[in-house]
Amino acid sequence: MKILVTSGGTSEAIDRVRSITNHSTGRLGKVITETLLKAGHQVCLVTTKQALKPAPHSNLSIIEIKNTSDLLQEMQRIVPDYQVLIHSMAVSDYSPVYMTGLDQVQASQDLSEFLHKKNMETKISSKDEVQVLFLKKNPKIISLVKEWNPSIHLIGFKLLVDVTKEDLIQIARESLEKNQADLIVANDLTQINVDQHLAYLVEEKDYQIAASKQEIADLLVERIQGFDC
Amino acid sequence: MKILVTSGGTSEAIDRVRSITNHSTGRLGKVITETLLKAGHQVCLVTTKQALKPAPHSNLSIIEIKNTSDLLQEMQRIVPDYQVLIHSMAVSDYSPVYMTGLDQVQASQDLSEFLHKKNMETKISSKDEVQVLFLKKNPKIISLVKEWNPSIHLIGFKLLVDVTKEDLIQIARESLEKNQADLIVANDLTQINVDQHLAYLVEEKDYQIAASKQEIADLLVERIQGFDC
Repeated sequence: MKILVTSGGTSEAIDRVRSITNHSTGRLGKVITETLLKAGHQVCLVTTKQALKPAPHSNLSIIEIKNTSDLLQEMQRIVPDYQVLIHSMAVSDYSPVYMTGLDQVQASQDLSEFLHKKNMETKISSKDEVQVLFLKKNPKIISLVKEWNPSIHLIGFKLLVDVTKEDLIQIARESLEKNQADLIVANDLTQINVDQHLAYLVEEKDYQIAASKQEIADLLVERIQGFDC
Repeated sequence: MKILVTSGGTSEAIDRVRSITNHSTGRLGKVITETLLKAGHQVCLVTTKQALKPAPHSNLSIIEIKNTSDLLQEMQRIVPDYQVLIHSMAVSDYSPVYMTGLDQVQASQDLSEFLHKKNMETKISSKDEVQVLFLKKNPKIISLVKEWNPSIHLIGFKLLVDVTKEDLIQIARESLEKNQADLIVANDLTQINVDQHLAYLVEEKDYQIAASKQEIADLLVERIQGFDC
């Protein structure tokens, strides 16, 4: 099967020397890609420069992106060519719009004016004691996938921090429905470390539990075999 | 000589999944450290997990830090033990204090109230269309070095973006004076790439030009031999 995998975390520039980065080593996407390749699938991995990557393989192509805007553009272009998308990338929810000193913000009558401004300086001055950064919500790429390719099988990820198992599964089910996904891998940052990676593979009526990155990858490969492509 | 080198870029957490990171590969600090070791110096490198690092060496110790607060604590502890500090790390000027939706900020009478708030959630919700992040200026570590060790020789760095040579040297001289440094390495991001790294080694009355990371390192080692320690 032709499978698209995303991994790593996007970075959104504040200026030429600073970015807001979503943490992600890319390790899970690497294990998933390697497991898919072993099972004979053809994989395109969309990832970042910093992310861990699988060894070169004749059935693997890699595309590097940096920010949400790059990702949106690439995904729109390539999603139609694939049968399955495993979207494990940590995508930035917000992008910086404008940064300025607190005094300027205090003096404003209507803060929305700052949403139409742009920092013209290449490195924002560090003179103010307090700075204020305005951020705008990014388009949710996962919600656009089915528009670009209605027949693609979509596997999404939901990372939360320190919530109950019930909440995790509930939120995964909401994401499942909203994004018309086949499956959502729900995980909690407090239950991820080098050795373990607890995850719930949540479908509409059922879920499976994985205890490590390899187990997540194995269950996904198994599930994908069942897809009708 | 006992020489302390800093390299890489600090990261300041917004929440458990996002940080503001100052870009720096650590490549220059690596070359400087290797060149110092070759010249027979004893080096402690303070750097980050992501930064490029020199190969292990019997005269090299490495300390990893993450954010400005870690760096401040470590530097205060170890600066007194060294004769020279080469401070090439890209240190965050600001740290996140509080992030909230635009509506809440609009509704506030006094924006300084947000400087005393803390995000209690581990992952800030992504419901608002626009978010506002308040950031507070970090202590300038370079300005504290001489308080911690008045006899240390201090070599600082100044990275600017797309300025004239005159401005670069002028701003380096201001930093030289303000921080009681022996030398400031001034460089411009637009003149740095994999192959070249134009830099001015600025002292009170004079400056030297380097065209690559190795040349910067060689000139620094040469200059250090002349220090009276």
